[in-house]
Amino acid sequence: MNIYFAGSISGGRTDIDYYVKIISYLNNYGIVLTEHIGDSTLTDVGEKNITDEYIHDRDMHWLLNSDIIVAEVTNPSLGVGYEIGRAIENRKKVICLYREKKGKRLSAMIAGSKELILEKYSNIESAKKIIKNHLKKSSKDIL
Amino acid sequence: MNIYFAGSISGGRTDIDYYVKIISYLNNYGIVLTEHIGDSTLTDVGEKNITDEYIHDRDMHWLLNSDIIVAEVTNPSLGVGYEIGRAIENRKKVICLYREKKGKRLSAMIAGSKELILEKYSNIESAKKIIKNHLKKSSKDIL
Repeated sequence: MNIYFAGSISGGRTDIDYYVKIISYLNNYGIVLTEHIGDSTLTDVGEKNITDEYIHDRDMHWLLNSDIIVAEVTNPSLGVGYEIGRAIENRKKVICLYREKKGKRLSAMIAGSKELILEKYSNIESAKKIIKNHLKKSSKDIL
Repeated sequence: MNIYFAGSISGGRTDIDYYVKIISYLNNYGIVLTEHIGDSTLTDVGEKNITDEYIHDRDMHWLLNSDIIVAEVTNPSLGVGYEIGRAIENRKKVICLYREKKGKRLSAMIAGSKELILEKYSNIESAKKIIKNHLKKSSKDIL
């Protein structure tokens, strides 16, 4: 199974520790095409020595060739929103993981979309349970 | 001409003054379906007394019925990214307006997409010039 993990880069790296652990767990279910999102040396300045066009086209290629998209949507991010929007239009299964924060609200475009699966989590253990539930099912769909 | 203006709500209302002025100028070219994005009483808590599903479906209906999308992409926003992604897949003309900020970088998924028009601006006068150039052309396409 090819898994596309989406997390914030330019929007801010506040949640990098969650991304690292989620990606590590997703590796049990398939190949995480975007493993670099969990690279702690990758800052909000983004990947170096490659153009934005290269990054965009590579990521879109991965997105279109993935079996499932897992997006961490706690931190506002244009890139993550863009990927979710394009994934939905391409009839991909999209799972959004969201940690509630006091005084913050998830975009209504994500919270109100019936074309994705939104799951709230509070810590990495609850995130793992959610992933387990959804990815076991997805593995069966593919086999 | 129906214009869909996209700007950050839940992602933060830092740029509200720009949204207000851009929407006001866009009104010279057509109907701005999402005029409420420039409502200064609308905070990052979002619209009240309506569900996320209602907001999502209303905004998607507007997006699909618009002739052009103008997105202000300076502030990271899941909703704006989502709208751009879905607009591109629906072959809409998308113009992204971006103000460069020291130490900040625009998402490579926006900066690197060949399916949208990215324009940098520094103040409201330069934004108006960009809009004038693109929307005059679009008006002709429609007529």
